[in-house]
Amino acid sequence: MRRLLITHAKALVGTHAPGVSLVAGADMARLPCVEDGWMLVEDGLIRALGPMATLPALAPGDDLHTVDATGLYVLPGWCDPHTHTVFAAPREEEFVDKIKGLSYQEIAAKGGGILNSARKLRDMDEDLLFAQAKERLHEMMQRGTTAVEIKSGYGLSLESELKMLRVVKRLKEALPLPIKATLLAAHALPPEYREDRAAYIRLIADTLIPQVSGEGLADFVDVFCETNYFTVAELEQVLEAGARHGLPGKVHVNQFTSIGGIQAAIKHGALSVDHLEVMEEADVDALVGAFGGAPSRSTPLRLRSAWVDVTGAHREDDARGPIPTLLPSCSFFLRIPYGPARQLIDRGLPVALATDHNPGSTPSGNMNLVFSLACIQLRMLPEEAINAMTLNAAAAMGLAHTVGSLTVGKRANLIITKPVPSLAYLPYAFGQDHIDTVLIDGIPVRTGSALA
Amino acid sequence: MRRLLITHAKALVGTHAPGVSLVAGADMARLPCVEDGWMLVEDGLIRALGPMATLPALAPGDDLHTVDATGLYVLPGWCDPHTHTVFAAPREEEFVDKIKGLSYQEIAAKGGGILNSARKLRDMDEDLLFAQAKERLHEMMQRGTTAVEIKSGYGLSLESELKMLRVVKRLKEALPLPIKATLLAAHALPPEYREDRAAYIRLIADTLIPQVSGEGLADFVDVFCETNYFTVAELEQVLEAGARHGLPGKVHVNQFTSIGGIQAAIKHGALSVDHLEVMEEADVDALVGAFGGAPSRSTPLRLRSAWVDVTGAHREDDARGPIPTLLPSCSFFLRIPYGPARQLIDRGLPVALATDHNPGSTPSGNMNLVFSLACIQLRMLPEEAINAMTLNAAAAMGLAHTVGSLTVGKRANLIITKPVPSLAYLPYAFGQDHIDTVLIDGIPVRTGSALA
Repeated sequence: MRRLLITHAKALVGTHAPGVSLVAGADMARLPCVEDGWMLVEDGLIRALGPMATLPALAPGDDLHTVDATGLYVLPGWCDPHTHTVFAAPREEEFVDKIKGLSYQEIAAKGGGILNSARKLRDMDEDLLFAQAKERLHEMMQRGTTAVEIKSGYGLSLESELKMLRVVKRLKEALPLPIKATLLAAHALPPEYREDRAAYIRLIADTLIPQVSGEGLADFVDVFCETNYFTVAELEQVLEAGARHGLPGKVHVNQFTSIGGIQAAIKHGALSVDHLEVMEEADVDALVGAFGGAPSRSTPLRLRSAWVDVTGAHREDDARGPIPTLLPSCSFFLRIPYGPARQLIDRGLPVALATDHNPGSTPSGNMNLVFSLACIQLRMLPEEAINAMTLNAAAAMGLAHTVGSLTVGKRANLIITKPVPSLAYLPYAFGQDHIDTVLIDGIPVRTGSALA
Repeated sequence: MRRLLITHAKALVGTHAPGVSLVAGADMARLPCVEDGWMLVEDGLIRALGPMATLPALAPGDDLHTVDATGLYVLPGWCDPHTHTVFAAPREEEFVDKIKGLSYQEIAAKGGGILNSARKLRDMDEDLLFAQAKERLHEMMQRGTTAVEIKSGYGLSLESELKMLRVVKRLKEALPLPIKATLLAAHALPPEYREDRAAYIRLIADTLIPQVSGEGLADFVDVFCETNYFTVAELEQVLEAGARHGLPGKVHVNQFTSIGGIQAAIKHGALSVDHLEVMEEADVDALVGAFGGAPSRSTPLRLRSAWVDVTGAHREDDARGPIPTLLPSCSFFLRIPYGPARQLIDRGLPVALATDHNPGSTPSGNMNLVFSLACIQLRMLPEEAINAMTLNAAAAMGLAHTVGSLTVGKRANLIITKPVPSLAYLPYAFGQDHIDTVLIDGIPVRTGSALA
């Protein structure tokens, strides 16, 4: 047995009670903490925690390692429930073209965009793809990310989508952090299907989804439901096929236009609706209704804060809609509107945050910058943002039963901060590195002075 | 003699010719580079450089340390010509108040703003102030900053302004990077002078400036020329007093309103005009005129790229106005407009970039994030941004003769990057750490794998 005892933490942050797997509305500003805390980790799991006054006498032994966290916060590691971290190459040349004033059409004509990534990925050796993604995830773990979702979607063919998902499967085996895989074959229409869109949807629904499900290569399905990409009807076909094969939906909706993707995602029981930069009142109303609230602004939603998990555990309330997942780093990089976090929270909804890490619209996997953007641009309180980047983000990828809070029985995926004066200092002092140590299953993946 | 030989650099970046101390207009997009380069550093200075094909045989010896920079870029270290890095305490509680929707008036009524910083600073022990600022500068050096300007302005009394400048003097002595000190007593009106503004200006002009100049405590003077802060007439009084005592102006103008500060700064030969978030056509015209161009949009400015330095060296053109210095991290944090970099450059002007590091409006000293903001938000090309963060930034604090480019004879203040595919990748992959090694006078202040 390996034991790690953390003592004198300035606070243990996000000590949600067992069974609480999502927080919504006004509850998002409530971040349970234990000040001057201790935590015992045994065999990679959080075994016990409490204020220092309650620290029990522990049997000494060679297996017991003690960390004095005086002046340091202990938080759940960041959970990043929306990334495209497996890709063949960065696309900074398109970034420069955009600065020079080229239009999206002109960049596409030069061979840019998702199809650019697809072309490069098809040509790339699987081992190299794996090695590069592993390096990126290593960097993300250094920045505090201890659970992540990764999408396919740069394959756009049976063979290349499977190649991407095999890479994700190898990443799951090679890296300590929990990884969820999402089949996003419906990311852009491959040129060879331009004259027969239906055939590509059939390939996804009738061939890819059954095969991916059968081989255990994906946990979720995704569709980029957007004007000029995939229609609501196509989204429904993919979600239906996913449901038939046990793959819930996590979908791209409302990034540039509001075309009904949210309503379709609700209808098909999707786990999350992601992006949401362009939201009409009816979209918010639909989400409120999906969470069991009256779809009217005059009747604020009152939700209980414990939820059915994707695993079916801790079922307390069946009225759970898809979790709104906002991606502020994408808005930052593309200079498009930010998702309406305040409106969603004020209507009683939960919000999760993710990076959207990808080479086209978000070349950054840094959740700490997401934290600053959430507070500066989305006007989220630091407590709301922490809940959105930990417990709710875990819930948005079906991992809230194992990570996302400092709760007895969960995996010891932890961030120990440097000495900082307050939790609010973390997003306020933006662009700086406030993390000292990162642990996954109680084992350091970044070792700072706290462990020295 | 200590010698450092860097070989096989992917490129030596910013190899401006000797005597070039500022680049403007279309020249800003021209960033001279030596591909596959070597550089010899002797006794802290750049002694020679060139493409690998020209590498001479060097006398071997114990004093010769060689760094293989294959795949890595070598750049001039970042120069940060506008900071308020000496301060008593962060102000994240005001940040949270703003998220909660409190107005500036309400925050001020709770004791916030510059006067909050002044109150805390007056009470703080000088040694603690020094130790904290030293730690912040250490962090900035880790992020590649190798020259910096620091302002007073949280003292707002004779005694406290002198205390701040004494701290800056100690920082100059204690740290390896070049530091310039600026007297910013006219940062906000101290409450005790509310009924007699003129008395405070007299204190600055007749007492503080002579004393500070006499004791060598400052290199420049600054005024926050802004509606509700200091008027143009007050700016002129301070700049005149500065000029009488050999302290050129570096001034805060046009952050929230355009009231004529730029024209006054030009009249009094200020070295830089900083902020510029709110610019009217007449303000840009005035700057173009100050640099010897016709003040009309139809006649683009054609400037030579070598300039009179603040030291008087390399004088080639006397028509030099104050250097426009933009602070995009401040715009990012306050959600105010970004300075019009494109307009200034397209009119033929030079642009410098700085962090504005301070506890109220820019709690970040990270020039790499400034780089990303310059490209994403100001629409500067990566080459323009690099010139603005190195040579022009050095010029904006009178240091272009010693730092800011990879030029023989300058100090070896260098950044060696991690392996990155291109220079454009640096701002594109935002929120990540692309720096491997930082050297000041050829001595590592951050040691990455390149030196291992």
